[in-house]
Amino acid sequence: MKKLINDVDNVVVEQLQGMALAHPELKVNIDPHYICRAVTGDKVAVVSGGGSGHEPMHGGFVGYGMLDGACPGEVFTSPTPDQMYECAKAVENGKGVLFLVKNYTGDVMNFETAAELVAAEGIAVQSILVDDDVAVKDSLYTAGRRGVGLTVLMEKIVGAAAEAGCDLDTCADLARKVNLNGRSLGMALTSCTVPAAGKPTFELGEQEIEIGIGIHGEPGIERATMKSVDEITEILTTRILADKGYTRTIREWDRVANDWVEKELVDEDLNSGDQVIAFVNSMGGTPLSELYAVYRKLDEICTAKGITIVRNLIGPYITSLEMQGCSITLLKVDEELLKYWDAPAQTPGFVAR
Amino acid sequence: MKKLINDVDNVVVEQLQGMALAHPELKVNIDPHYICRAVTGDKVAVVSGGGSGHEPMHGGFVGYGMLDGACPGEVFTSPTPDQMYECAKAVENGKGVLFLVKNYTGDVMNFETAAELVAAEGIAVQSILVDDDVAVKDSLYTAGRRGVGLTVLMEKIVGAAAEAGCDLDTCADLARKVNLNGRSLGMALTSCTVPAAGKPTFELGEQEIEIGIGIHGEPGIERATMKSVDEITEILTTRILADKGYTRTIREWDRVANDWVEKELVDEDLNSGDQVIAFVNSMGGTPLSELYAVYRKLDEICTAKGITIVRNLIGPYITSLEMQGCSITLLKVDEELLKYWDAPAQTPGFVAR
Repeated sequence: MKKLINDVDNVVVEQLQGMALAHPELKVNIDPHYICRAVTGDKVAVVSGGGSGHEPMHGGFVGYGMLDGACPGEVFTSPTPDQMYECAKAVENGKGVLFLVKNYTGDVMNFETAAELVAAEGIAVQSILVDDDVAVKDSLYTAGRRGVGLTVLMEKIVGAAAEAGCDLDTCADLARKVNLNGRSLGMALTSCTVPAAGKPTFELGEQEIEIGIGIHGEPGIERATMKSVDEITEILTTRILADKGYTRTIREWDRVANDWVEKELVDEDLNSGDQVIAFVNSMGGTPLSELYAVYRKLDEICTAKGITIVRNLIGPYITSLEMQGCSITLLKVDEELLKYWDAPAQTPGFVAR
Repeated sequence: MKKLINDVDNVVVEQLQGMALAHPELKVNIDPHYICRAVTGDKVAVVSGGGSGHEPMHGGFVGYGMLDGACPGEVFTSPTPDQMYECAKAVENGKGVLFLVKNYTGDVMNFETAAELVAAEGIAVQSILVDDDVAVKDSLYTAGRRGVGLTVLMEKIVGAAAEAGCDLDTCADLARKVNLNGRSLGMALTSCTVPAAGKPTFELGEQEIEIGIGIHGEPGIERATMKSVDEITEILTTRILADKGYTRTIREWDRVANDWVEKELVDEDLNSGDQVIAFVNSMGGTPLSELYAVYRKLDEICTAKGITIVRNLIGPYITSLEMQGCSITLLKVDEELLKYWDAPAQTPGFVAR
């Protein structure tokens, strides 16, 4: 294993220390780990978090127009409830806290505990799941779909709404709307190596790729032989476009009942005539140039299907360490979502004028 | 070789086509290859270029506040004079053209021819070299030092000056000033694979790293055994800080003589008490998180030496395809350079508010 690290036990701490030095506009708390804005705003506090190793997500999206706080766990490991609780307390400013939670068993459980702790202090809290990965319904790490690339778009859009002064319920509704209108699928050319493990998470042969990979290297739909970028893009896009009406039962916090309630939520279909934000993401080790080759074919397929890409995001935003590969996310948008997507943002990992 | 490509012969064209679809605010010309702003400004036209494979540089830096045009060659291959000439003609608007040229034999020769072609049409032209790599004085690709990470900072700063209305001579003087105040050094953990070659440019063992690597995989100072990020950062930074008064003779176009003139240029020293912009760059395949570990140590070393990092840039901006590794660039700054560094920019690869 060759990585730019010192002791594997200190990887996350030292990266956070570097981030603190580079970004004095952020507060980086080491015990417990969380990153938040140095100055809190008079607004709904939007907080996310998850395992490290996906940078710039989430810590790199803390700042004006996006997150108020982020809780990094160890690499590919959920953060703990006390991180989420302390982070929420640090940024909460009377308008309540919105947790944005990727659907992994550990993250869900710990954010639920954190929400209860925050609510117990009389602070208004909402918690919205992201489960956009059309690859698999249940997996090693999840009941239901995994939360992947759509998280980035959700953090941008909901962060902008909070910045614009929307209240907690409006922000939560918007986050839910993003989730029900977005879908993702990824693939890997190579594995990645978690520092503490010291060896690749999985092995792929010289001519093998993994379709439907998760952001922790979880297996997906199939292990296939190497294909052209056009073929790979077609497989990913076709599967995303074919996905209709996914239904899941999720738990959301009910502030009146002061308890969790179950909700059945159904995805909005994506059809000819729709407008989308298209996000082509590098898993970490794939060059930007190759993502443009993916985008070229993606645009062709969407156009042929009558779907118009009205905005795009291309680059490494939700990564799996140095894994080579890409993911595609399509988010159906209306005027409201576009307005918040286009709003300015100033974070280490995402700037919009 | 596993890459997100179709035919190796079409790699650059298809990536440019993707870029054209993703960025309608740019004009992407296919024959010959160049990328420029769709709408030219009433200002000095700043044009750069070089081999592909270093994305987002240079094409990703075309836009408001940075470049007016960029000429991508084939992967790791200089663009041709006709690309540079056509690009310059497309963006020139009566205020002259400034070429920013990385010091590689092919690039220098071709940009010289292009400058002569442009000048022959009565268009004011200047051409400034970047040669910031302290690793080696002469190499496979260069007479003198190679042009590496400083190019990104130069394109930002000079682009901002042109946007602010500075004339051609002022922009050229500023570019020269950036070059004489900046130094870089890089290292590699792994090689990269040029698509047309189909195999890694060089081989590094499981415990080997290359100190002083060039952005095309050129060998550098030494092949060393794997070290901690603190040790690697110390080696790079110490060598950068120890570099004093580098002197070279370069050729610049003289508009009065209508010919090339030789100039002896001497670097400004970097000393205790100075302020710098610190740029920690990924060679492509190294995760952002590891760059923060580099930055942590870099900040510590600079602080101990009495050098204050007043701005930073951390991420993959001048890459070598999927190579793992990093480079460090330190640019000594004054009020003038900082003002232009802080100015807004809107390009696919760099946004500043």
